[in-house]
Amino acid sequence: VPGQLTFVANMKYAHQVSETKASAIIVSKSFPSYPVRFLRANDPYFAFAKALELFYKEPKTRGGIHPTAIIGKRTRLGSHVTIGAHTVVGDDCWIGDQVFIFPNCTIYSDVTIGQASVIHSNCTIRERTVIGRRVIIHNGATVGTDGFGFAKNEAGEWYKIVQAGRVVVADDVEVGANTTIDRAAIGQTEICRQTKIDNLVQIGHGSTVGENSLLCAQVGLAGSTTVGKNVILAGQVGAAGHLTIGDNVVATAQTGIPSSVGPDQTVSGYPAIDNATWLRAAVAFRRLPEMLKEIRRLHERVEFLEAQFTR
Amino acid sequence: VPGQLTFVANMKYAHQVSETKASAIIVSKSFPSYPVRFLRANDPYFAFAKALELFYKEPKTRGGIHPTAIIGKRTRLGSHVTIGAHTVVGDDCWIGDQVFIFPNCTIYSDVTIGQASVIHSNCTIRERTVIGRRVIIHNGATVGTDGFGFAKNEAGEWYKIVQAGRVVVADDVEVGANTTIDRAAIGQTEICRQTKIDNLVQIGHGSTVGENSLLCAQVGLAGSTTVGKNVILAGQVGAAGHLTIGDNVVATAQTGIPSSVGPDQTVSGYPAIDNATWLRAAVAFRRLPEMLKEIRRLHERVEFLEAQFTR
Amino acid sequence: VPGQLTFVANMKYAHQVSETKASAIIVSKSFPSYPVRFLRANDPYFAFAKALELFYKEPKTRGGIHPTAIIGKRTRLGSHVTIGAHTVVGDDCWIGDQVFIFPNCTIYSDVTIGQASVIHSNCTIRERTVIGRRVIIHNGATVGTDGFGFAKNEAGEWYKIVQAGRVVVADDVEVGANTTIDRAAIGQTEICRQTKIDNLVQIGHGSTVGENSLLCAQVGLAGSTTVGKNVILAGQVGAAGHLTIGDNVVATAQTGIPSSVGPDQTVSGYPAIDNATWLRAAVAFRRLPEMLKEIRRLHERVEFLEAQFTR
Repeated sequence: VPGQLTFVANMKYAHQVSETKASAIIVSKSFPSYPVRFLRANDPYFAFAKALELFYKEPKTRGGIHPTAIIGKRTRLGSHVTIGAHTVVGDDCWIGDQVFIFPNCTIYSDVTIGQASVIHSNCTIRERTVIGRRVIIHNGATVGTDGFGFAKNEAGEWYKIVQAGRVVVADDVEVGANTTIDRAAIGQTEICRQTKIDNLVQIGHGSTVGENSLLCAQVGLAGSTTVGKNVILAGQVGAAGHLTIGDNVVATAQTGIPSSVGPDQTVSGYPAIDNATWLRAAVAFRRLPEMLKEIRRLHERVEFLEAQFTR
Repeated sequence: VPGQLTFVANMKYAHQVSETKASAIIVSKSFPSYPVRFLRANDPYFAFAKALELFYKEPKTRGGIHPTAIIGKRTRLGSHVTIGAHTVVGDDCWIGDQVFIFPNCTIYSDVTIGQASVIHSNCTIRERTVIGRRVIIHNGATVGTDGFGFAKNEAGEWYKIVQAGRVVVADDVEVGANTTIDRAAIGQTEICRQTKIDNLVQIGHGSTVGENSLLCAQVGLAGSTTVGKNVILAGQVGAAGHLTIGDNVVATAQTGIPSSVGPDQTVSGYPAIDNATWLRAAVAFRRLPEMLKEIRRLHERVEFLEAQFTR
Repeated sequence: VPGQLTFVANMKYAHQVSETKASAIIVSKSFPSYPVRFLRANDPYFAFAKALELFYKEPKTRGGIHPTAIIGKRTRLGSHVTIGAHTVVGDDCWIGDQVFIFPNCTIYSDVTIGQASVIHSNCTIRERTVIGRRVIIHNGATVGTDGFGFAKNEAGEWYKIVQAGRVVVADDVEVGANTTIDRAAIGQTEICRQTKIDNLVQIGHGSTVGENSLLCAQVGLAGSTTVGKNVILAGQVGAAGHLTIGDNVVATAQTGIPSSVGPDQTVSGYPAIDNATWLRAAVAFRRLPEMLKEIRRLHERVEFLEAQFTR
């Protein structure tokens, strides 16, 4: 559309450039010439991300503590803090400078929120949670809820194990809408810096997610799951507890991970196996009924040959 | 139970009719006669839906703007609007006639909500979202949250792409509890009229869902996913991004859709294949260990025959 | 770490005991001797659960009805009830003794909450829901939302079936964060006593979950699903509607259950089959491409033998 800016990050779309009606296109430095206005960048996708910011208006407009917000005893607020209407902050919290909390959030007691972090509306941050700087927590997320821990008592009934640990979310993490991060029974659940978590993700108690990883929507980590750095778990991936996923691992969508995965692997399927093997097996899977028939036919032919031979 | 009304939509339950203690049964016009009080209808299930309404009492009882609700600047409210206790509505919103917003909701700025729509408690509607008429949004849903978009910067770290687009929800849509609908990075995420979305569903940024489709619980659409009209995605189905699912497609539960699906297909499995093929392959799957053994035995027998033959 | 208490429930970790720096270890009565301070118990895991309670401080500190809480008409409150800031309770509710409701919750009308139950912040309890004693509902959960029920009308469009039933949650149940429990169209959705439900679980309308069962994170029950006693559904398991899962069934992670499962079984895969069969088939799955090749080779060799033989 005229007046619009767009980008080409993938060479396979290059031929569509001449059809665009956009006023300018961001392309890589090696991109071929076309009779179109180009903005050349080392990384067109990243440059597009930066360009978009010029047009974007943040929804954060009001400052100060709304008169209907409730702030607990001994809670300290930094400078330029915004706390939205009807938000409730517990006792003994520490809210850093420029923190922005939207309306209808509930912050329990003893919570720390680092400088310039943003908590969107209707979130809950449970007691003793520690949140770093420039963290973004999206609407409806709950951080620090009880882990799912039960021991069987003498009567064979599930007995609740108190979840006495906490959650630590490091700097520059993003937590998606309606995502749930459980606190540990003992010790802590930890999300390391720069990691981005999408919507409706479940982080079980005592899990650790390394730096700069991506957890896409509806991923679930069972508990005491250790995820490395630069890992990508695609949508709906599940990982069992008490296992380690190495650095740079990629798990494709819906993968189920029942045991540890070494670094630098791409895995798929349930139980997760090497992606290349899985792709070939998944293609062969459709031919299973045909394979069954062929095995039966071969069996008959071999039997016939054997009968002839021993006649 | 005496005094109760029930229905038979499926002929296979016809024989149970004589055992019922209900006072009346809704059946199709072609249903056989039994010594029971029948109400005959073209479509017994639909007639039952209508009959149920006679007995149902909506939870919407209070009118007006609750004194604890907070309404932003320049926000215009239609007639007969209800806004519940502690709900916060931002600036520059437009709330249509007869809209009913339950307590503890957060509506950001520049939001439009069409006539007679209902927003249940503890929902968030983010900035610039447009909601049509007679839409129902269930408790805890978040509409218009940031899409999950990141570009790698020079240091190899994920850099947030501002999500500058919006969400448009058309007339007569229903959005389930704790479902999340992300707004687009640019342009819009769109839910077309009459589409019904269940609980805990994730709609990724820039996706479009066509008219009169059903997305069952825990479905996930990755982003820039285009879903056609009259589509049914059963529970826990996942679809990757940048693909098209044609009109009238049915995906059975837990299906994973990695690439486009043409119209009118029923698909299953991951990666999604034709349902009939998948059903046969799934049955054969259990026999894999047995197949492996049989192949090994055949191998030995063929080897033996070859040895005999060349002797 | 000195001053710490830990436990050994599994004999395979016994050899690590001598390396611990903890001040005491809880072990079973049959555990071998080591030069470490032991606390012996019949069930070390259960004893650990009890010991942890000595160190745990509950976040529930304030009593009474917060002045910003809103209580509906004719609603009766027991003794020692706590209702947090900005929580809204509808008309005609009955709140038992020692109930603790955290801030920003919305309780619709005609709700019953039994003695000593705890509702964490930002939850919604819909109209006519009945909650038993000592129930814990975690943050952001919604109980009693509309079931996902639609009938096609004459025009082929989805017509909403009013969901006129209710939800009953029995004593000592726990409901996880952001979990959704739908009320029935008619009759009730029922969670029986002692059952523990994790985060982001979907319970479809008209389902029944028996006593003392565990539903792990992101499990989904479609609707009119009947789950027995002492069942364990691991993470991301899905079950279709109108089926029965017998007592003591275990479904491993990501299992998809399309039809009824008899009691005492362990099932896996989609469609769910016996776990032992599934495990063997899953191992064979990786060898599918190799099997295809071997079948092709056998085919050629048999053909060659046949040609030789009939020559």
